[in-house]
Amino acid sequence: MDINDNFKKLDISYMFSTVKKKVEQFEKKNPDKKVIRLGIGDVTKPLCKSVIDAMRKAVDEMGTQEGFRGYGPEQGYDFLKEKIQKYYRQNNVELDLNEIFISDGAKSDVGNILNLFSKDNKVLIPDPVYPAYVDTNVMDGREIAYIKADKENDFLPVPNDSHHADLAYICSPNNPTGAVYNKEQLKVWVDWAIKNKAIIIYDAAYECFIDRNSDLPKSIFEIQGARNCAIEICSFSKMAGFTGTRCGYTVVPNNLVFDEMSLNKMWLRRQTTKFNGVAYIIQRGAEAVFTEEGQKEIKENLDYYKNNARLMAQTLDKHNIYYTGGINSPYIWLKCPNNMGSWEFFDYLLNEIAVVGTPGAGFGKFGEGYFRLTSFGTYEATKEAMERFDRLLS
Amino acid sequence: MDINDNFKKLDISYMFSTVKKKVEQFEKKNPDKKVIRLGIGDVTKPLCKSVIDAMRKAVDEMGTQEGFRGYGPEQGYDFLKEKIQKYYRQNNVELDLNEIFISDGAKSDVGNILNLFSKDNKVLIPDPVYPAYVDTNVMDGREIAYIKADKENDFLPVPNDSHHADLAYICSPNNPTGAVYNKEQLKVWVDWAIKNKAIIIYDAAYECFIDRNSDLPKSIFEIQGARNCAIEICSFSKMAGFTGTRCGYTVVPNNLVFDEMSLNKMWLRRQTTKFNGVAYIIQRGAEAVFTEEGQKEIKENLDYYKNNARLMAQTLDKHNIYYTGGINSPYIWLKCPNNMGSWEFFDYLLNEIAVVGTPGAGFGKFGEGYFRLTSFGTYEATKEAMERFDRLLS
Repeated sequence: MDINDNFKKLDISYMFSTVKKKVEQFEKKNPDKKVIRLGIGDVTKPLCKSVIDAMRKAVDEMGTQEGFRGYGPEQGYDFLKEKIQKYYRQNNVELDLNEIFISDGAKSDVGNILNLFSKDNKVLIPDPVYPAYVDTNVMDGREIAYIKADKENDFLPVPNDSHHADLAYICSPNNPTGAVYNKEQLKVWVDWAIKNKAIIIYDAAYECFIDRNSDLPKSIFEIQGARNCAIEICSFSKMAGFTGTRCGYTVVPNNLVFDEMSLNKMWLRRQTTKFNGVAYIIQRGAEAVFTEEGQKEIKENLDYYKNNARLMAQTLDKHNIYYTGGINSPYIWLKCPNNMGSWEFFDYLLNEIAVVGTPGAGFGKFGEGYFRLTSFGTYEATKEAMERFDRLLS
Repeated sequence: MDINDNFKKLDISYMFSTVKKKVEQFEKKNPDKKVIRLGIGDVTKPLCKSVIDAMRKAVDEMGTQEGFRGYGPEQGYDFLKEKIQKYYRQNNVELDLNEIFISDGAKSDVGNILNLFSKDNKVLIPDPVYPAYVDTNVMDGREIAYIKADKENDFLPVPNDSHHADLAYICSPNNPTGAVYNKEQLKVWVDWAIKNKAIIIYDAAYECFIDRNSDLPKSIFEIQGARNCAIEICSFSKMAGFTGTRCGYTVVPNNLVFDEMSLNKMWLRRQTTKFNGVAYIIQRGAEAVFTEEGQKEIKENLDYYKNNARLMAQTLDKHNIYYTGGINSPYIWLKCPNNMGSWEFFDYLLNEIAVVGTPGAGFGKFGEGYFRLTSFGTYEATKEAMERFDRLLS
């Protein structure tokens, strides 16, 4: 038996374990100091009432002969797909029901969607970036090229004629930079993809943070031509606090036909062969997110996190520190002051004011010199961290 | 962009849609006749009380600040893994906690486990068989050889020196044949795998149907040497009616080291990169299966299905029809009487007595001439179907 030896090429990321170790050491040496963690990418607010009520009802159904549900459709129940279809209509995007596939989260589909593509494809990935795009392609042995995100392009790179690839990743609002593409920028991506017969894998996991009244695109399908070149992956994780509840969805347009094969039908075949759908109970919970009450409740939570982000942004503004994100995103990506390196700044913040963030270098080589803060903590902790930050830099 | 053109080699199975179409036509023509379905592979009894209570409690926790859980460990919570560890101890199998990975069901892991192996590996698959083993390997482009299951080997084939492969599949109790390997037979498989440096992917999804007092192996790890050559995939789907609730587990022993790489660590890396764990609520439900009360409750459901199987077996015995399964399995696999073909017998049963089963030919070419009945219907319907069957063949 031969193993898939692409696994040998995977970088082992020590970032989060190193962060953890450093924080533990600090706490041991400084038992009196209260450490504030602004590095976490996980939500902290409980599930909203509408979701809880819906899941409680679904659990009860599953215990009765009449209400019990066995195998559901692998691609998800229509009751949930119809709500997502309607959600997209708010942005003037019309989807067929069969273009929507319910998943157990964006991370699964970001990995599994690659089943549809040849290993010989070349991949274009922004740097810095969410590490799963790179790792999943390394596991398959694909050649990866990077497109540099930096201060010059405000961490929103767009491709030009010098870029050639078969698959490209976009995450907007971005993890880790919080930067959000506008429609003109996404149009450049779409035109490039069509010209290169490439597929864009569009990670919209943070679209819920975009101000609903803003003109920023919440879906790539708001861009003309995107139905011919893009797959969109989204999640209830950040939208409704589902990080531990696991539900998301993927949109594969019917227009995507390559080599006489429909990517939509290929994905359906992949899912019906290697997946058995998301738990009925969880899908009922996700459905409740789209009720009027559910939308109001999740907005309260999102506003809470956005308020934290605003507080951080104000503090950075006061000190003239360059950053992206903070608006329309739960992340703030800042340039380390005084040209410090990512880890140098990490140590500085930890040792001087007991605040923990995430070194940008952990997200790619062009992340060096940057630092990520997240807004998923409590308001009180975020406020105190920013007061310490303010004093430190004053 | 090039697609994964292995998808072009997938057979399109028309079996279940043809069955559906034929039944619909029959019902239209014969509105007065009550059709009984013994073809379904899905459970029908509701989730047991212990599971419902545990999930209700977990839902409530998720709605409170103190009880809320975000991202859990991708490989599952220890509270569930510890119960599975204990469950295996009943069969004198000792597993490390890190060898157990919680999944969203056996089907996902049967597909995804192949990420660990080279596309150049050769695969050995019994015929007839659960179609996912074939399809998932076709998607990867692996060469497949078949090992014939037939009346001569009681549908329990074992390999010999003429068989060479890198990966091999075993499903015991088998879907579709209901046949169960004994320890001596599995020992032949294990010895063969070690000699050939092959990995056995052991699908134990139906182990819960094996009489706990019998000496038949419930896990391949009851066989000496299996820790050096086998991965076991299991599920709560049949054990506790989780087909629509989605939870299972996979055991990857630490002993499996090939080319200096630990398959256990590779699988951990695969899961942490492409999976985000099973919903907390669902894992709490699965945990409750292992309480004393939970075990009693699921046994009642399993006994109900087993009683249906017994009823079918008795009817076949009476008419001297050859079959496998029926004991220690929810499936009965019978030789079509009078040398009828699978579809011929399907039509005969439908038209003469309005009973629906599954043509064996749909599970592989050596399934031709056989027919699958399942015990997942109600007792009343099963009884009536067997009375009709009895009259027809008398």
